[in-house]
Amino acid sequence: MQAHPSRRSCWASLPSPNVREAASMYGTAVAIFLVILVAALQGSEPPENPFPYHIPLDPEGVLELSWNVSYVQETIHFQLQVRGLRAGVLFGMSDRGELENADFIVLWTDGDNAYFADAWSDQKGQIHLDTQQDYQLLQAQRTLDGLSLLFRRPFATCDPKDYLIEDGTVHLVYGILEEPFRSLEVINISGLQTGLQRVQLLKTEVPIPAMPEDTQTMVIHAPNILIPGQETTYWCYMTKLPRDFSRHHIIMYEAMVTEGNEGLVHHMEVFQCADEIPSIPPYNGPCDSKMKPDRLNYCRHVLAAWALGAKAFYYPEEAGLAFGGPGSSRYLRLEVHYHNPLRIQGRHDSSGIRLYYTATLRNFDAGIMELGLVYTPVMAIPPQENAFVLTGYCTDKCTQLALPRSGIHIFASQLHTHLTGRKVVTVLARDGQEREVVNRDNHYSPHFQEIRMLKKIVSVYPGDVLITSCTYNTEDRNLATVGGFGIQEEMCVNYVHYYPQTRLELCKSAVDDGFLQKYFHLMNRFNSKEVCTCPQASVSEQFGSMPWNSFNREVLKALYGFAPISMHCNKSSALRFQGEWDLQRLPKITSTLKEPTPHCPAGQALNPAAPTVVSIGRGRG
Amino acid sequence: MQAHPSRRSCWASLPSPNVREAASMYGTAVAIFLVILVAALQGSEPPENPFPYHIPLDPEGVLELSWNVSYVQETIHFQLQVRGLRAGVLFGMSDRGELENADFIVLWTDGDNAYFADAWSDQKGQIHLDTQQDYQLLQAQRTLDGLSLLFRRPFATCDPKDYLIEDGTVHLVYGILEEPFRSLEVINISGLQTGLQRVQLLKTEVPIPAMPEDTQTMVIHAPNILIPGQETTYWCYMTKLPRDFSRHHIIMYEAMVTEGNEGLVHHMEVFQCADEIPSIPPYNGPCDSKMKPDRLNYCRHVLAAWALGAKAFYYPEEAGLAFGGPGSSRYLRLEVHYHNPLRIQGRHDSSGIRLYYTATLRNFDAGIMELGLVYTPVMAIPPQENAFVLTGYCTDKCTQLALPRSGIHIFASQLHTHLTGRKVVTVLARDGQEREVVNRDNHYSPHFQEIRMLKKIVSVYPGDVLITSCTYNTEDRNLATVGGFGIQEEMCVNYVHYYPQTRLELCKSAVDDGFLQKYFHLMNRFNSKEVCTCPQASVSEQFGSMPWNSFNREVLKALYGFAPISMHCNKSSALRFQGEWDLQRLPKITSTLKEPTPHCPAGQALNPAAPTVVSIGRGRG
Repeated sequence: MQAHPSRRSCWASLPSPNVREAASMYGTAVAIFLVILVAALQGSEPPENPFPYHIPLDPEGVLELSWNVSYVQETIHFQLQVRGLRAGVLFGMSDRGELENADFIVLWTDGDNAYFADAWSDQKGQIHLDTQQDYQLLQAQRTLDGLSLLFRRPFATCDPKDYLIEDGTVHLVYGILEEPFRSLEVINISGLQTGLQRVQLLKTEVPIPAMPEDTQTMVIHAPNILIPGQETTYWCYMTKLPRDFSRHHIIMYEAMVTEGNEGLVHHMEVFQCADEIPSIPPYNGPCDSKMKPDRLNYCRHVLAAWALGAKAFYYPEEAGLAFGGPGSSRYLRLEVHYHNPLRIQGRHDSSGIRLYYTATLRNFDAGIMELGLVYTPVMAIPPQENAFVLTGYCTDKCTQLALPRSGIHIFASQLHTHLTGRKVVTVLARDGQEREVVNRDNHYSPHFQEIRMLKKIVSVYPGDVLITSCTYNTEDRNLATVGGFGIQEEMCVNYVHYYPQTRLELCKSAVDDGFLQKYFHLMNRFNSKEVCTCPQASVSEQFGSMPWNSFNREVLKALYGFAPISMHCNKSSALRFQGEWDLQRLPKITSTLKEPTPHCPAGQALNPAAPTVVSIGRGRG
Repeated sequence: MQAHPSRRSCWASLPSPNVREAASMYGTAVAIFLVILVAALQGSEPPENPFPYHIPLDPEGVLELSWNVSYVQETIHFQLQVRGLRAGVLFGMSDRGELENADFIVLWTDGDNAYFADAWSDQKGQIHLDTQQDYQLLQAQRTLDGLSLLFRRPFATCDPKDYLIEDGTVHLVYGILEEPFRSLEVINISGLQTGLQRVQLLKTEVPIPAMPEDTQTMVIHAPNILIPGQETTYWCYMTKLPRDFSRHHIIMYEAMVTEGNEGLVHHMEVFQCADEIPSIPPYNGPCDSKMKPDRLNYCRHVLAAWALGAKAFYYPEEAGLAFGGPGSSRYLRLEVHYHNPLRIQGRHDSSGIRLYYTATLRNFDAGIMELGLVYTPVMAIPPQENAFVLTGYCTDKCTQLALPRSGIHIFASQLHTHLTGRKVVTVLARDGQEREVVNRDNHYSPHFQEIRMLKKIVSVYPGDVLITSCTYNTEDRNLATVGGFGIQEEMCVNYVHYYPQTRLELCKSAVDDGFLQKYFHLMNRFNSKEVCTCPQASVSEQFGSMPWNSFNREVLKALYGFAPISMHCNKSSALRFQGEWDLQRLPKITSTLKEPTPHCPAGQALNPAAPTVVSIGRGRG
C-alpha cells in the first residue's frame, strides 16, 4: 500500500536549475519505454480546434486542464498540463468531488517505466485498474516546465466504474504522486495531495452573434484590492453608471481575471440596485462586514454572473439586457468570491466583469424570471434525508395570463439552492405531458452557480407548465430544514433568462398552509411526542419539534405530492396578477420524461484492460 | 407490413404425403443459401450433455424446446424442434408472456434464402433487428418431420432490447410464420399464430442423492379420465394409503404424464388430508363441481407438487418427508390442472405423480413452513396500482423461540399469491442486515406455481428474520384488493421446505388493526368522501369505500412500512407459541441486498448487426 521511497524526483521536478540534466533524464527514459503508443494513436490526430476551454485545477497552478467537446462524436479531448511533475498524477471525476468512488486516469512511474491507465477508486480510496480502458492516451509530451498529456474520453462509456459526463456541473478531482509506485493497485488516494474543481465540461456552443459597430464596453471591477488571507471571502464593491446614462442593451459580457489570480477568483456577479432606492453609499469591502451599509441589500437584480471556467456570455442576436435610462438604478454592486484555501497573503486583485453594450437597442428586451419554490417555511426537508425532492410549479393558469401568445424563449438559466441542494431540474409540460428539459444539473453544487446558455432554446407558451424540482441532502442535519432566505434555510430556484421580456417576474409555488396544518394534526395522532398545532407556533417551530420517523417523512412527501398549492404569479414589486391563486390544484402530469439512456460507443469495450506504457515525446518544450 | 402471399408452403409443411418431394426442395434450398455458418460455429460444438430439459411450447406439439444450462459460462443452449415448418418461426422471452416488447430469435425465409436473427418486438408488435446479435445459431438441421435449430444465448447480454434470464419463472413466447417475408422489419407479431409457455429455465442442478435399496414407489394418478373440452380444468381425485401403512419418508417424486398429453397437463399436486378428519368420501371429478364433497377442503398439506417443465424432485440425502403411520391421514387428494385452450375433445388421461419412498427413515424429517402475510383484509392493495408491494415478516422473536440452536436448512420453496401477484421474494436478515435471498421470482405468475429446489441451501438460526415481499398489479381493478382466502383476494406466501422439522408451521405477520383504523380516521380529514370508521364496518368494507388518490395510496404504503405488526408465530393447528405477538415493532433493517448487476460476456458486442443466412444441414432426418 505504501509508495516506495526511492528517488524523490524521478521525473525531474521543474522549474529547476538543471533543465538540461532533466532533459537528458527524459531522453534516457524515452529510450527504455516500450513504444506501443502507435496503436493507441490510430485515427486520433489532435483535434482541429484545440482547446477553447481552460481551468486551473489547484490553487497553486500546478495542474491546468484544457479541453474541447465534440458533440458529434460525443467525446471530450483533454489536455492536462502538469508543472514540475514529480512521480505522476491522477485526474478524474466523481459525483460530488469526493476522491472515493471516483473515475481516474493515472499517470505513474515504477521508477523505470511510465504508465497511463483508466482506473477507479473504491470507497476506501484504493486505486484499481478499469476492466475497460475508456480514456485513450493520445500524446505525452515534455514542456518547458513539466509535462502535457493529451487524452480523450467519450461522454458515456457504459463501464459502471466510469463517470457519466452529463450537462451541468462536473466535479473534477486530482491527486499528485510524489513517489514511484510498484503498481497501480498499491496507490491509495488518502496519502496524496488532492483537490477538486467544479466546472461545466459540456459547454454550450452557439454561433457568436455579430457585435454592432457602436458596441461599447465598461469594466466593473474591484480596484486593486488586497485578497484576504482566509479561505472564503465575498467581496462587495459599489459603483455607479455615469449620470444621464441612457437606455442600452447589454449584449455580451466576460470575466476579466487579474493574471496570476486565476486559481483564487471563484465567481463574480454584477447586480443592479432597486430603482426605488434613491442613493446607495459607496462601499469596498467584505460583503459580510458589519461596516457594509444595509442599503446594499437592495442590489439584487443580476446583470451579469460568471463562475470559474465560464466563457463569455452572449445574448441571442434578437435580444439584449436593458440597463440605463429611466426606471433603471445607476447603482451597481460587484460581488467577487475569492476561494483561498491555502490562505495566500498579500495578493492584490482587480478582477471584474467587462460588459459589452450598445445604444442601438435590439428587437427585444431580455428578461429574467424566477421559477421554483416560494421562500416560505411550509416547504421543508426532514433531517437525515439522503435525496429529498421538493417541487415548485409555474402553472398553466399563470402562463395563460402572463405570457404573450407568441410565447417566450428561454436561452439561459441559473440554478439556485442553498447548502443542502444536490440536483436541480426544470421541465416544461404541455397538455399534461412533460415535453422537454429546460435545464438539468444532476451534480448541482451551491458553491458553483453560473448562468448557463441552454443547448437548445426552450419556447414557453400560454398554458404551459414549468416544473422545477430540487433534490436535497440533509444527512448532516438534526432538525428539519425549512424554506427561507437564511443560508441555513433552503431555496429551489431557476432564474431563467428569456425574451421578449414580460411583466411576469416570478412564477413559483408552495404547499397550502392549511393542508400543512392538517398534516401536523394527523401526525400527532401517530406519534407520542406532539407537535404544537396551536395558532401561536410558527411553521418553523412546528417542523423543528417534529419527532421524525419513516411514517411522517413519507406522509410529508405524499402531502407535497398531493395537497393544493398557493401560487405566486407575480409582476415586479411583488404584485400578483389578478386572479385566485390560493388552493390551486397541482398540475396533473400523465407522462413524464425519462432521463436518456447513455449511448455507448461501439467497440470501445475492446481496449485491453492493461495500462499503456507511456513514451514521452520531446514536444515544444 | 404484409407478408407476400406467394408460395404457401415454401419450406414444405410436414408431415405430408410428399416427403420425398419436400426433401428435394430442401436440397435445392441448401444449394442457394450462402454458407456463412462456419464463422458463427467457431468453437461451438454442440454441448456435451445434450438437453436434460424439455417442454412443449404449444398445445398442438408443433414446437418443442429442449435446453441445458452452463452456470460456468452463464449460457443456455437451446434446441427448438419445429414439426411441419412453414415459412419460419419466432421464439423468445418477455417479462410476462406478452408478445410486444419481447426478445426473439426469428427464423424466416424471403422465398429464396433462409435467415436467422436476434430481434425484438416493439410495443406495437413490430419486429426489429437487434443492433447486438446475442443469440448465436449453431446448427439448423432437417429432421424427419420438420426442422431442428440449435442456438445459444448468455443469461445476460446487456443489450437493453434483450431479456435478462434470471432464476425463477421465464415466460417463453413463440409465433409461427405461415408466409415468406421480404425482410424481418415487415413482420408484425399481431398477424401470427402465437402463444406463451412458462418455465423455469435456470434449473437447480444438485447431485442426485443415492436411492436406498428398499425404495418403493407409488403412483397417485387420475384413472383414465376424459379431459374436459374446456380451457381450464382443475381435476380432483381422492385416493388413500393402504391400511396400516407405516411411517415412511418420501425421498423423491416425479411426474408421470400420459404420452400425447404433454401439452395439456399444466400442473399436478398431491395433498394429504388433515388427520383430524376420520374419513373422506371418494371423489373423481372437477374440483369446482358442486358434487365435490366439502370434506376435500381439509386436504391441503402438500406432499408433492409438479408443474410443466419441472424435473424429478429429490429431498436432500439427510431428510425425507414423512407420511404414513400414526398422526398421518390415509387420505390423499390429487389435483391436476388441465390447460386446454384449443378445447380438444375426447382425450383420455392418467397423468399423476410417482412417489419414491423408503421405510428406512432418514436422519431428519423434512418440514414445510409458511412465511409471508397472514390471510387478513388489513393487508390491502389499492386499485390501479402497477407495482404495489406488501411485506410479511417472520421476526427474530419468533425464530428465537421456535428454531433449534443448530438452525434449520431450507432447500426448496414454493411461492404463492393469487391473481394480482407479479413478483415474490424472501430475504434472510441477521443483525439488521439483509444477508441472502431465500428465493426470488421477478416474473412470478400465479398460473405457474412449482416447488423449486434452491440453488443454495439457506440456513436460518434463532434470531434471524425472514422478510417476504410480494408485488401486485391491480391495474384492472376498480376497488381495493384485500388479503384473504378468496381467489379475488390476495395472499403473499412462501412455503419453504426445510429440515429438521420444527413445531413452527407458520411465521407470518399483518399490520396492527388499531393503526389501520387510525389510518382510516386520518384519511377522512383529507378527503371529502368519508370512510366509515364506525365499529360495525368491516375492514374490507372500509377499504372498499376509500376514495383513492395519490395521498391515501402513499400514506397506506408509509403505514405498512411503519406501523407495528401482529405476528402469527404458530405451531400446527393454529396455536401460537407463547408470548406477546401483537403490536410488535417492524424489524429494523439497516442494510439491504442489491439485485446483482448482470455480468455481460466480453466481446459479445462484436457480433455484427445482421441476420445470419442459414444453411440447413440434412441431419438425422
